[in-house]
Amino acid sequence: MKKLITFVGALAFGFSLQAQVDSTKYNFIKQLFEYSLTDGKSYDFLSRLCSEVGPRLSGSEGAAEAVVFTDQLMTDLGFDSVFLQEVMVPNWKRGDEEFGFLKTQSGESLIRVTALGGSIKTDGVLEAEVVEVQNFGDLERLGKKAIKGKIVFYNRPMNPVHLSTFTAYGGGVDQRWKGAQEAAKYGAVGVLVRSLTLRLDTLPHTGSMAYSDKYDKIPAAAVSTVDAEEIHKQLTADEHIKIAYKISSYWRPDTLSHNVIGEIKGTEKPEEYIVVGGHLDSWDLGTGAHDDGAGVAQSIEALRLLKAMGYEPKHTLRTVLFMNEENGLRGGKKYAELAKENKEKHIMAVETDAGSSYPEGFRLDGTPEQIELVKSYRDYLEDFDIYKFKKGGSGADIGPLKNGEVFLAGLNPNSQRYFDYHHAASDVIENVNPRELQLGAAALAAFIYLVDQTFE
Amino acid sequence: MKKLITFVGALAFGFSLQAQVDSTKYNFIKQLFEYSLTDGKSYDFLSRLCSEVGPRLSGSEGAAEAVVFTDQLMTDLGFDSVFLQEVMVPNWKRGDEEFGFLKTQSGESLIRVTALGGSIKTDGVLEAEVVEVQNFGDLERLGKKAIKGKIVFYNRPMNPVHLSTFTAYGGGVDQRWKGAQEAAKYGAVGVLVRSLTLRLDTLPHTGSMAYSDKYDKIPAAAVSTVDAEEIHKQLTADEHIKIAYKISSYWRPDTLSHNVIGEIKGTEKPEEYIVVGGHLDSWDLGTGAHDDGAGVAQSIEALRLLKAMGYEPKHTLRTVLFMNEENGLRGGKKYAELAKENKEKHIMAVETDAGSSYPEGFRLDGTPEQIELVKSYRDYLEDFDIYKFKKGGSGADIGPLKNGEVFLAGLNPNSQRYFDYHHAASDVIENVNPRELQLGAAALAAFIYLVDQTFE
Repeated sequence: MKKLITFVGALAFGFSLQAQVDSTKYNFIKQLFEYSLTDGKSYDFLSRLCSEVGPRLSGSEGAAEAVVFTDQLMTDLGFDSVFLQEVMVPNWKRGDEEFGFLKTQSGESLIRVTALGGSIKTDGVLEAEVVEVQNFGDLERLGKKAIKGKIVFYNRPMNPVHLSTFTAYGGGVDQRWKGAQEAAKYGAVGVLVRSLTLRLDTLPHTGSMAYSDKYDKIPAAAVSTVDAEEIHKQLTADEHIKIAYKISSYWRPDTLSHNVIGEIKGTEKPEEYIVVGGHLDSWDLGTGAHDDGAGVAQSIEALRLLKAMGYEPKHTLRTVLFMNEENGLRGGKKYAELAKENKEKHIMAVETDAGSSYPEGFRLDGTPEQIELVKSYRDYLEDFDIYKFKKGGSGADIGPLKNGEVFLAGLNPNSQRYFDYHHAASDVIENVNPRELQLGAAALAAFIYLVDQTFE
Repeated sequence: MKKLITFVGALAFGFSLQAQVDSTKYNFIKQLFEYSLTDGKSYDFLSRLCSEVGPRLSGSEGAAEAVVFTDQLMTDLGFDSVFLQEVMVPNWKRGDEEFGFLKTQSGESLIRVTALGGSIKTDGVLEAEVVEVQNFGDLERLGKKAIKGKIVFYNRPMNPVHLSTFTAYGGGVDQRWKGAQEAAKYGAVGVLVRSLTLRLDTLPHTGSMAYSDKYDKIPAAAVSTVDAEEIHKQLTADEHIKIAYKISSYWRPDTLSHNVIGEIKGTEKPEEYIVVGGHLDSWDLGTGAHDDGAGVAQSIEALRLLKAMGYEPKHTLRTVLFMNEENGLRGGKKYAELAKENKEKHIMAVETDAGSSYPEGFRLDGTPEQIELVKSYRDYLEDFDIYKFKKGGSGADIGPLKNGEVFLAGLNPNSQRYFDYHHAASDVIENVNPRELQLGAAALAAFIYLVDQTFE
């Protein structure tokens, strides 16, 4: 703690103490941010996760290595205990070959495609004429006659007018998730889905899709937005152009994996838990730096910061690294199932799974009284620019914990850049800013601290 | 306008109309943002400026090309008038050769250096022992005996605890600006300055420095932060290590250049002016995408947006692209001088020269009554997340306009990433996000609109 005392002489933020603000708490948070910006470790943790482990799709060797890596890391950091929870996860593999071509009268040109998570492979190269649609209503309107034997090309862009890019994503993701099953209804032989990003770039963005037992399973791939624009242009000129693509993805049997949990024991109520977590699995095209390596690094760092500050929590604090958020949510479900089974009382869970951009506030999900209490944290967080509180949408992994008592929250970073990298090969450490990442970790630590201090 | 009407049916932002809010104004601003996010042109303008023109240091061919390019662009966009203001600018050239070596007992290793703007060249390769200091007080304490004949190495990092990176920059920039003249007092033969960035990277960041007539002129170079750390480490082990570096920079006579101005004529008070501006010159290592290509693109786009929306301003609106902000501010001074000479009444000037990150609000500089009025714009801007108003620091180029009557403002983007790219080879279009850039342009257009509507 000696080091921290020197910070008091170098207070860098404007001091806006108000009547109702407890100066001990305020000063602790101020020192927490200053320490975090000076000697934070989350960027180091994330760099190591991305380089020493790399991509970590559920069931892969990378995912197994991520479990070992984070178990060891939290052990090395001196957490009071670190343990694993067994969970069976789906095991989908991309396979070796992915490519696509646009075939027009003037020749063939490459299009950049990638299998959607969960898709079956093509039988060799799939080649067919193309039907472009904006939504499922278009399918119904066109009918079997126009669709049968063709590749359905979903080309509805994310709507750029939404200030929150998550809202824009929410408005487009049905194409990816249900596109194959909807197109199969009408006899399509495959689907190609415009990548869910607001950028015009050459990267295909993957993500989960699902089949329905009622219809044929057909291959589903994403295509980069630049190529989507080109296909659209060529289709406008000639509706008989063809697309050929190959993907090699396949399913393996469910595989044993783990949630990884690190604890700092509570001094007053050790049987009551406060959780901070992100998901340990990632898609396989990049190294999951934003999604959700950032959340993993921040969730570990939040507890490390509090420990390094000498803080002794009232409740037990847990870093929970959930397995399989991306294509199954099995880890989140398992954690909640075991918490119920073991009668663990959870006070609060906060998730960080929205990238590592500049943190602006938190999403809140709880009783009106809880929300009112948490909103009062603004008095402590405003000087650190993290005070935008929004309702709902705390996070997928902690959702299963919801029981009317536990308070759920989500760190809310600025969303503008998130879908530039989301599920694409560009989701790498080079696109993460260390300060923004570390500000998120400090925000989480401060939030946990305030909950530990103020929740009964 | 037909296109815009369709937006009304697709309003994407939460409507939070308050009693005192004029719904016509609110709806205009909402449509402005939606149009801007859908069909904005600032990223296209910036891409072209960076690729067709490139770096544009005052006096260079690039700067001359930038004048022609933006003059033509605003003419093509149909501004009511576009004209140039002549201004003589300093003409400093980097020269061809820049390199550095760290020489220790175990051998030589490369260090990445670049001449500071304004520095003289080295006489061949400058090689000397090194004195590391944190500040000018260290120089005084060490004295001539320790410094004479050596290279002074300024190694005080930007202080990471400041939430605003501009504050951290302000606390470090004296080393770069005055480092050479202060070291020359004690007989130093050259200076090497730790790059002003919060990142640990291998890029040297340039920027202006100044000599004093009272002391010898000695060469001044920046060194990357990674190399600065290495030099520090080696000096700790052996105080007799040497640094050798060569820079080839030199001065040419002042050169004729221009401010570029585009206007949309006012319908009620055409002789009263509202200005939006950024600077057209840039440093020469990157292509000045953030500094200040973004400001150039946004300043042009702000007026284009208003024009495309069919808005007929009361006052005359001007896009002013100032020459020579980086190493002389001659353009800003000339603009103010001519405004005074020509008795042009300026109502408001807003500058955009803080990069293209996510815009959060504006910096305000005016009378208490003006500031109170502008703060009320929050009612219109809050739904677009641009409502943080801070006092002072509007912008360097518009500073000379200050006369107690004109209101000055500056667009305030989030600052976390700005110094990652500032004055370095990484200040390129690849590090600009189109939506963030465009949100800034929309914010400027909305601000101009509100001033035009509400200032008397």
